[in-house]
Amino acid sequence: MMKEKNLLCNAPVGVFDSGVGGLTVAREIMRQLPNERIVYFGDTARVPYGSKSRETVTRFSRQIVRFLQLQEVKAIVVACNTASAYALDELEKETDIPIIGVVKPGARAAIDATHNGKIGVIATEATISSGIYKRYIEKTDTGVSVVEKACPLFVPLVEEGLWEDPVTDEIARRYLSGLIDIDIDTLILGCTHYPLIRSTVGKIMGEKVTLVNPAYETARELKGLLEKEGLESEKRPELGTELYRFFVSDAADKFQKFANSILPYGILSAKAVNIEEY
Amino acid sequence: MMKEKNLLCNAPVGVFDSGVGGLTVAREIMRQLPNERIVYFGDTARVPYGSKSRETVTRFSRQIVRFLQLQEVKAIVVACNTASAYALDELEKETDIPIIGVVKPGARAAIDATHNGKIGVIATEATISSGIYKRYIEKTDTGVSVVEKACPLFVPLVEEGLWEDPVTDEIARRYLSGLIDIDIDTLILGCTHYPLIRSTVGKIMGEKVTLVNPAYETARELKGLLEKEGLESEKRPELGTELYRFFVSDAADKFQKFANSILPYGILSAKAVNIEEY
Repeated sequence: MMKEKNLLCNAPVGVFDSGVGGLTVAREIMRQLPNERIVYFGDTARVPYGSKSRETVTRFSRQIVRFLQLQEVKAIVVACNTASAYALDELEKETDIPIIGVVKPGARAAIDATHNGKIGVIATEATISSGIYKRYIEKTDTGVSVVEKACPLFVPLVEEGLWEDPVTDEIARRYLSGLIDIDIDTLILGCTHYPLIRSTVGKIMGEKVTLVNPAYETARELKGLLEKEGLESEKRPELGTELYRFFVSDAADKFQKFANSILPYGILSAKAVNIEEY
Repeated sequence: MMKEKNLLCNAPVGVFDSGVGGLTVAREIMRQLPNERIVYFGDTARVPYGSKSRETVTRFSRQIVRFLQLQEVKAIVVACNTASAYALDELEKETDIPIIGVVKPGARAAIDATHNGKIGVIATEATISSGIYKRYIEKTDTGVSVVEKACPLFVPLVEEGLWEDPVTDEIARRYLSGLIDIDIDTLILGCTHYPLIRSTVGKIMGEKVTLVNPAYETARELKGLLEKEGLESEKRPELGTELYRFFVSDAADKFQKFANSILPYGILSAKAVNIEEY
């Protein structure tokens, strides 16, 4: 019995995203929970999710959860705002291990941060049209109002490497001007790519606006959840391929290059799997 | 026997793309071959192809060819440069009906158009890294040299509707400056989205540079092929759902809206299919 428990505690946490963006969440988990093993899956063959429908995003997410369960993960983090918005409720019903998304931790952090009760959310078209941030925040704290704005060009600009660039400034000014006009004091970066252009967004919003990165809060929530369930890993595994494993549905070498530019540890390899078979 | 032949002639032409871009090819077929029925498939669940690997693009294309064959098409047009670049050779081997892509027709038109023997190609990362335009053109006419440039932000800019916009001008200037410096006189728009920003590209390249749209040449080549094989439809079918049918793998309503903005006929509906099952 004791042995079984230890085995389960030493099992990895599954983390998935439509592509590379969720690595910003994996990075926070590595920082805050250094004892935990991670199995990361990036759906690079079907990226992006943010322009696609609820049905499609849910079908894709289900396949990934099946894949991660075959890797014997002890818990799953949906490190993609769009999948959290569209698929998490369904996945929770169907899955017998703990599963958390990035939306609710981000929303709660924004509620804690706001002073004037005006919160902005920027995210993909899909996340915004789900209305999930607005609904959840305004239900949790009726004194708060939320204004949402889809920013579909931010992901391609980040992937093109234009993290600090006059073009990104100009596009950000257009997307954000409406949020500046209504005097929000807190802005949720509601897409895992956006922390990479945090300085551009911060420059345009001004220093009085608090930027909330749900990745940080999600790692904290995972920590609490593992403690509550008695699932924390007790000691740090050796650094090496067994500590962090990376899987993608396409172009493993490209993924590896991107991953190595944002993770604190170099990753040795990413393995390609045909996710449509799961 | 005569009846069988007629049945075959009246069968539709299959046209496919990663998403909406191939509609610029379908539009040319509608204009130049008004007697032909069309079944269009846009892989909107897995779009874009231009940033993905040869293996993935080939697997996706195979599934779509199987789907189109079940629609009993008489010929297939691969209306996507990336799929033409990566998958056409394989598809030709595996398919028992005529199948053509957009790359060779576009390449031949450019060879006809150039006077100084310097041709530029702009396309997605995948099409450029395949090297197919350069290889095919320089083999067909050894007096011609080709310079290629990937323009990954053009597709998102087109999809965001910024067809004429200072941001698109700025990005285009960056992508195209190298081609202007080496004095090309012909430029292939090697991605089916690019004809929609033709005026921006034309303004930056200047009026001495001929822009080649492979869609036009592909429709011409299809016409010749159907004539050669005795497969032309003899009379024009009634306008209606049977003339042009549209299928997508995701978000049929969004597709329909985009289609209606660029096609000469309003489309009544697009039907969603789960392409992973083919």
